[in-house]
Amino acid sequence: MVTLDKVYHASHILKSVIRSTALIKAPKINPESDIYLKTENLQITGSFKVRGAYYKISQLSAEEKERGVIACSAGNHAQGVALAAQKAGIKSLICLPDGAPISKVEATKSYGAEVCMVKGVYDDAYNKALELKDEMGYTFIHPFDDELVIAGQGTIGLEILDQLSDVDAVIVPVGGGGLISGISFAIKSLNPDIKVYGVQAEGASSMVNSVHDHQIEKLESVKTIADGIAVKEPGKLTFEMCEKYVDELVTVTEDEISTAILTLIEQHKLIAEGAGAVSVAAALFNKVPVKGKKVVCVVSGGNIDVTILSRVIKRGLFKSGRSCQLVVELVDKPGQLVGVSKIIADHGGNVTSVHHERANENSDINGCFLRIIMETRNQEHINEIKKALVDGGYKLV
Amino acid sequence: MVTLDKVYHASHILKSVIRSTALIKAPKINPESDIYLKTENLQITGSFKVRGAYYKISQLSAEEKERGVIACSAGNHAQGVALAAQKAGIKSLICLPDGAPISKVEATKSYGAEVCMVKGVYDDAYNKALELKDEMGYTFIHPFDDELVIAGQGTIGLEILDQLSDVDAVIVPVGGGGLISGISFAIKSLNPDIKVYGVQAEGASSMVNSVHDHQIEKLESVKTIADGIAVKEPGKLTFEMCEKYVDELVTVTEDEISTAILTLIEQHKLIAEGAGAVSVAAALFNKVPVKGKKVVCVVSGGNIDVTILSRVIKRGLFKSGRSCQLVVELVDKPGQLVGVSKIIADHGGNVTSVHHERANENSDINGCFLRIIMETRNQEHINEIKKALVDGGYKLV
Repeated sequence: MVTLDKVYHASHILKSVIRSTALIKAPKINPESDIYLKTENLQITGSFKVRGAYYKISQLSAEEKERGVIACSAGNHAQGVALAAQKAGIKSLICLPDGAPISKVEATKSYGAEVCMVKGVYDDAYNKALELKDEMGYTFIHPFDDELVIAGQGTIGLEILDQLSDVDAVIVPVGGGGLISGISFAIKSLNPDIKVYGVQAEGASSMVNSVHDHQIEKLESVKTIADGIAVKEPGKLTFEMCEKYVDELVTVTEDEISTAILTLIEQHKLIAEGAGAVSVAAALFNKVPVKGKKVVCVVSGGNIDVTILSRVIKRGLFKSGRSCQLVVELVDKPGQLVGVSKIIADHGGNVTSVHHERANENSDINGCFLRIIMETRNQEHINEIKKALVDGGYKLV
Repeated sequence: MVTLDKVYHASHILKSVIRSTALIKAPKINPESDIYLKTENLQITGSFKVRGAYYKISQLSAEEKERGVIACSAGNHAQGVALAAQKAGIKSLICLPDGAPISKVEATKSYGAEVCMVKGVYDDAYNKALELKDEMGYTFIHPFDDELVIAGQGTIGLEILDQLSDVDAVIVPVGGGGLISGISFAIKSLNPDIKVYGVQAEGASSMVNSVHDHQIEKLESVKTIADGIAVKEPGKLTFEMCEKYVDELVTVTEDEISTAILTLIEQHKLIAEGAGAVSVAAALFNKVPVKGKKVVCVVSGGNIDVTILSRVIKRGLFKSGRSCQLVVELVDKPGQLVGVSKIIADHGGNVTSVHHERANENSDINGCFLRIIMETRNQEHINEIKKALVDGGYKLV
């Protein structure tokens, strides 16, 4: 059972190992409320996971420590366990599915873990880990369904109360439920008036469904860019704690997550991974009642694959109307490019790329297309430029 | 003249307005030294500029405040002055060249400034600002060559000493020289043993050249992605202070800056703009003596255009060997794609894009090209895959 004693003990044990991450005021997230970010993306290893992992490892017996620990993860938990084991001076073995991104594998190795690549998907790696645990006597470190791991994550709740004692609500990302179990337990134990909201990705809403139906439900599949919370089934303990301590669970869409990631980059110069940004997405899009309240969004991690980051940025610019692609059909005669460029420039569009294409088989033999990408202010600005082009006699495709 | 009195006074005045930004340990920047980041990218407005601007404005007479302030900038200084004026409750007018990025114009407006778009380049906007100043009686807020602005930036020096009293060296980005003048003055006044190093972009090395030749020199043109420090000519006061207080000035290349930006994203989940990352670039590439030392890199700002950010990320992945493009020449017959894919997969490459092109006029009429982009571990990994393809009978273009 998780107790306040254990959370305080974890806080004491973690003091010299982890960072007490900054709470940063974020006035632009939602103008109607007073939003703060608990920046666990700036935690060592780039996520909160090291808290629970280290506390769990610190409580092993000397004999267990001697044998070492094993975990299964392709992400933050792997890095958390690896670093926690390294700091505790014990051996760690991490099982990963062989499709895991190279960057994650390298990061895990860089924290001193031994890595065991398992053919197949996550479930195969998980089974392999359990097999090796039995065979070799390693202690298995569960990513969330463990009272000591939960107590470790709960230290974030203590820090929030310390940093902003008059907080009204805390918004927390939810995957398996370890983070929110710890935080909600710590906060509700000390001040039941503070609201705790949980957020899942729409494509991985296992805890939302389970709590809604008051029984643990497993999803067939999960699909979200928030890979850190793409969990098919909540834990037994975390499910019980969410039922008991969490005020409301909501979901956010992939577009809302992308917008939150981009907002954190542009407004706050912070990199969050999808899982870390769902709390901000919920505040941005009023998924939970934040109006007039003092609210902390827990930004749980920042380990986003840079390829995905690059895609999120591009998509975000298009979606918010700050980048726009137009295709203009032209008659292939001199001066047309000048005409189009002039109209765009006169209306304040900033062309960043022009691609000139010959017509395809369906159109006029003399025709050609101009594919233009430009920087714009917003959707109205795009509409204004489009209208000016049409008024100028150009045909938009 | 800048005095320690003024810097302490600025520190007092700024207390309720700005953030005392976190100093974050950054063990992976350079394994041979103990690196910390002074995160002024997390400052309000996303850069340190608000410090100097606010302190300057706070010291205006009631009559001057009544008339308002004017500045010329397309970047951080504009936002700093705009917010500082808003916080002080006075009017600000910012002159911008009409080619300024839309995002910067919008950001400046969002802090309550009036914006005056001037036809031409920076120099035209600057002249317009001086003209309006004379005509309307506004006070001109210089971006760097002003003792009160410098004193305001110097507060960063005090904070560093407070956060890490046994620091050995501080590395500071240099454009016009306001930031390093303030920091080096504060630090050397309190502890002359601490080294202060300045860093410029190779394509905008006006202060480096001037200090080298012991006279102010103006560059014909500047070219760097670090637009925040792309300054043609140092100030008179800042030049004198750099000569007196700075231990060494060095330059970094565009590639080094890009790598530093990417390192901050991946290792520390922080967004820095080019100008903000030059200090980290200097530490990463051993441009100044950091070995065995406790070193603070001032990350001066985070206002990077997201389009540039996206390009930096892509380029960084290619440069570090974590992304790679191969062109394989194939005979146009079935099974070739399978063969190539298998070799890449067997060697652990992760294909993210395949483009199949017909041969051009110079090659075999039946030939075609396979343009493959894949995720890789590093340059050796790329070489290994290339060798395997050649050994497998494929021709790389």
